[in-house]
Amino acid sequence: MTDIEQVARNAREASTLLQSITSKQKSLILSSIHDKLAENKQAILEANAVDKANAEQEVAAGKLSVSLFKRLDIEGKDGEKFETMLQGIKDVDSLYDPIGQVSLSRELDEGLNMYRVTCPVGVCLVIFEARPEVVVNIACLAIKSSNAVILKGGKEASATNQKLADLIREAIDATPTPEGATTFPANAVQLVSRREDIDKLLDQDRYIDLVVPRGSNSLVRYIQGHTRIPVLGHADGICSVYIDEFADVAKAPHIVVDAKTNYPAACNAAETLLVNSKVLKTTFTKVAQALFGANVILHADEASYAYLQNESGLTIPEGKLVKAQEGDFDKEFLDHEIAVRVVDSVSGAIEHINEHGSKHTDVIITENKDNAELFMRRVDAAGVYWNASSRFADGFRYGFGTEVGVSTNKTHARGPVGLEGLTIYKYRIYGNGQGAGDYGVGKGKRSFTHKTIPLDEVRNKFVI
Amino acid sequence: MTDIEQVARNAREASTLLQSITSKQKSLILSSIHDKLAENKQAILEANAVDKANAEQEVAAGKLSVSLFKRLDIEGKDGEKFETMLQGIKDVDSLYDPIGQVSLSRELDEGLNMYRVTCPVGVCLVIFEARPEVVVNIACLAIKSSNAVILKGGKEASATNQKLADLIREAIDATPTPEGATTFPANAVQLVSRREDIDKLLDQDRYIDLVVPRGSNSLVRYIQGHTRIPVLGHADGICSVYIDEFADVAKAPHIVVDAKTNYPAACNAAETLLVNSKVLKTTFTKVAQALFGANVILHADEASYAYLQNESGLTIPEGKLVKAQEGDFDKEFLDHEIAVRVVDSVSGAIEHINEHGSKHTDVIITENKDNAELFMRRVDAAGVYWNASSRFADGFRYGFGTEVGVSTNKTHARGPVGLEGLTIYKYRIYGNGQGAGDYGVGKGKRSFTHKTIPLDEVRNKFVI
Repeated sequence: MTDIEQVARNAREASTLLQSITSKQKSLILSSIHDKLAENKQAILEANAVDKANAEQEVAAGKLSVSLFKRLDIEGKDGEKFETMLQGIKDVDSLYDPIGQVSLSRELDEGLNMYRVTCPVGVCLVIFEARPEVVVNIACLAIKSSNAVILKGGKEASATNQKLADLIREAIDATPTPEGATTFPANAVQLVSRREDIDKLLDQDRYIDLVVPRGSNSLVRYIQGHTRIPVLGHADGICSVYIDEFADVAKAPHIVVDAKTNYPAACNAAETLLVNSKVLKTTFTKVAQALFGANVILHADEASYAYLQNESGLTIPEGKLVKAQEGDFDKEFLDHEIAVRVVDSVSGAIEHINEHGSKHTDVIITENKDNAELFMRRVDAAGVYWNASSRFADGFRYGFGTEVGVSTNKTHARGPVGLEGLTIYKYRIYGNGQGAGDYGVGKGKRSFTHKTIPLDEVRNKFVI
Repeated sequence: MTDIEQVARNAREASTLLQSITSKQKSLILSSIHDKLAENKQAILEANAVDKANAEQEVAAGKLSVSLFKRLDIEGKDGEKFETMLQGIKDVDSLYDPIGQVSLSRELDEGLNMYRVTCPVGVCLVIFEARPEVVVNIACLAIKSSNAVILKGGKEASATNQKLADLIREAIDATPTPEGATTFPANAVQLVSRREDIDKLLDQDRYIDLVVPRGSNSLVRYIQGHTRIPVLGHADGICSVYIDEFADVAKAPHIVVDAKTNYPAACNAAETLLVNSKVLKTTFTKVAQALFGANVILHADEASYAYLQNESGLTIPEGKLVKAQEGDFDKEFLDHEIAVRVVDSVSGAIEHINEHGSKHTDVIITENKDNAELFMRRVDAAGVYWNASSRFADGFRYGFGTEVGVSTNKTHARGPVGLEGLTIYKYRIYGNGQGAGDYGVGKGKRSFTHKTIPLDEVRNKFVI
């Protein structure tokens, strides 16, 4: 057995034990992790200093970007990032227990009851880059949802990641087991660090139930193409904002500028601006002006280019208006750049988005309810917003505490994925000796009653 | 563009329109299909006669099994199968609309509300064998859940399948469109028939969102290994029944015999019997006797073989007790045969099942609540039953009307999959111009309120 197969088996074994961990014990563990990390802040910062020193050389040699370097830092200004990380543990602890929730409850026959009850997915592999606090975030989400997790972090943060994972495992080990409860296994959280481990892990479909890649487009695509394990995440984030015929001219510039410039490198930043041809001369002019003012380059299609250049009367800053090229509408600029296209109607916008978008988050700006509803129904995306910036697509903003990742999948979980995305369900049936052959048509045969049992009656039946 | 790519694109286009179909219109279509099939019973039976005549030759030539031949028949004894098929359409119609259901509802801020609302998965490909009534079942489930579906049926039933699909499409086309509603596209239901179409369809991950294979183990495995599209289904159905130390001797024989013999070829039939060593001489003896009486061959491990042969005092029918071979515990017998293994404890049973089972449905027979709960928590399967036969794992018995298939996946949907398994959700946000940059720490910045909006208040907000 290879080391990696052993890691995967350990996780599976831990996962089985985690199926019967209590809410109370999960809470004890999370407190214990919180305190352990707080007490060992100095040691964590020392490990982080090692990573930063190595990274500084890489930056100097031009091998690492400054923004990546910044993400490595775990302390933040006046220790703010570290405090946020610690607070995050308490936030996860304060969420409701996602395990043991009943979503369907039915009497099949007298004395034969069925319940659909949430349970952990099992073993999750989370692959991420740079930011070491992800170790803590994901470990806490996994514990809260009774999943075992294997973490593969970025090479740049390896010393910090290792220190954090060690402390988390120590904290788990040291948590007293409440009477009668299962010991909580430290292997609930495991860290691997070598790049070559990824391929070996992707082969462990026997033990691993879900892979969550958080990172570059190329990393995600690679993983999607190299495993039989279900992958939850997103490669692209091509979000569009559509300015409808009935857009409010007072709202549009603010929404578009926020969607583009609030954090251009994020997956929920707008990459495409669709404009109804009827508002070129009105709302669009204001929006374009605001975008130029925010230092954004417009990659404009023929109609919008001609209008801006020849008719708009706007003073266009040098280099900020360029003609859209083939591929600009299928691209993440991840910078102060946006592709602009004129469409005839809300249907034209829907068609464009369903053809070119990445099913992440798309926005309509309009005061017309019918157009908004049509857009929100027919655009095939995890998030569909009416008069709000695409930048709201985020677990914290949705009130999920933190997020495992953002999914553009069509199954299981979409959008920012919090604890619920790490759960699935089992059907539990409670009988007293029934066989299926007892039911049917004919003498002495029974019939199913199929009566709904009110969920309120069984709400806490399976939370332990 | 190939024919098949065109089929996939047609489905995608239909799917977009289906996103805004009303409940009322779906109901009209289902009635229309019901009436169309009832009126054209004769023509359907004629098509079925063609398939049956062809199949008879195949049976005579030894190329087709008699059981497969039986499944081809769409009329049944006294027309009973045909009536059941028609009734199934009404049953699906009577189910609640799974689209537009709100599962999360939250005020992010005053004037900024978020709703998680169910929507169709989009385009589903369902691959099945032999039974032509599946065309009708699946078409109705797809329509009710606003999905477009591509059906690939078995060659043996091709004339019947084609006739049914043609009539369904005619019925869709002829349904009057309620004022203001979208025309319902006939391409919501498409049928392809050639074996070689499967591979081409599996490549259409751009247009197809979900594949549901219903058929042999080898078909399912092939599909799982040859597509990037999520696959919902099961290859194996290795279900186990565990007779606990505290099993009721009066219940055990009935449950085990039902689980094994009620329909041995089904995926939810028991293939493995696990016996606690403490009840070998008591409950197991009764169970073995009942199994022999039901004409079942026991593939017994060393301990159970030795006991039955030397100590049980049972008269063992010729050939009904054999020694278990390597692989017998990882096998679907799909016949009157069962593998038997002695274990020491409920934990031993759990370990065996998690190692050898197929995550389908597993049963514990016990009067001990703690053992039952431990088993139901730790066994990793779509169904975990206490004192009831594994044969209950079925959409009809669960009260789902009919089923798309049975899933042993760990994500999206598990167990018998009804309408809900064909849905996913979108996050809808309703704002009035907010940007994410409006929120945060600092002067003039707003904070999220994250207030729960009671689901009762929004229950019907999105059902159209």
